[in-house]
Amino acid sequence: MASAHESVPQVGLVIVTHGTCGECLLAAAADICGPVSRASTVAVSVHEDFNEIVRRLGRACDEVDEGVGVLILVDVHGSSVFQACLAMIDGTSSIEIVCGVNLPMILKLTTVDRKGLSPPEMAELIKEVGKRSIRLGSELTGKIVMHPEEHR
Amino acid sequence: MASAHESVPQVGLVIVTHGTCGECLLAAAADICGPVSRASTVAVSVHEDFNEIVRRLGRACDEVDEGVGVLILVDVHGSSVFQACLAMIDGTSSIEIVCGVNLPMILKLTTVDRKGLSPPEMAELIKEVGKRSIRLGSELTGKIVMHPEEHR
Repeated sequence: MASAHESVPQVGLVIVTHGTCGECLLAAAADICGPVSRASTVAVSVHEDFNEIVRRLGRACDEVDEGVGVLILVDVHGSSVFQACLAMIDGTSSIEIVCGVNLPMILKLTTVDRKGLSPPEMAELIKEVGKRSIRLGSELTGKIVMHPEEHR
Repeated sequence: MASAHESVPQVGLVIVTHGTCGECLLAAAADICGPVSRASTVAVSVHEDFNEIVRRLGRACDEVDEGVGVLILVDVHGSSVFQACLAMIDGTSSIEIVCGVNLPMILKLTTVDRKGLSPPEMAELIKEVGKRSIRLGSELTGKIVMHPEEHR
């Protein structure tokens, strides 16, 4: 039996990257946790025309937007790809951007409540998950890492 | 004329990911900043045998190690892929691991002094670069993100 929650719109996802990293991240998340719904990727080439990036990104956002907005994940802030993401914030929909996308963020997005949170709320959560995921092997295990001078 | 610095060994890099994300990251960094030297990638499939991952990762580390160690970047901590990275810390070489790899880390690795820093020193630097790179679009621009309730 379909629950009422199933008809509630969820926040759309767009991953925008230099090259096809976004597709790889979605595929990896699907392999580990199962498919990510209402998610799209935009692979940008370094020499691509800015207006063309904006046009393709706009189309990707439209495709996944169910009326409650879109969370955009982008690889690098300060790039023209990031500038194209900013162009999506035009007042017609709720959009937030998270820069520095990595796999732990996408894995989290497979379980986060995309029907209950707004794009800005999801972005805050994903930002913290991303930051916490960046750790050293030695921090996580206490294993002693040999320094080169000890190695000689 | 070749400088003395050119013959100084540099820290090797290995990017280990679920699927081919590592290759995409290296290709994107090459497009933006130029090629990353002494770098290798290992693409792991979810169902791959653990010992096979360890074997392939060990070979990748050996390929890039010039005698001063290797920095391994991995996508997710806590995974069997991460466990395979830990198996590289066997006391024979200086190894450090950074979890949660993203593109800003790889871009930084194109300019960092890989001949002057040890793997643990590089790892600390790359960890901080990675964490700082994870930011919200609204933080970076001050643009107001529309909330859904305002949108209706």
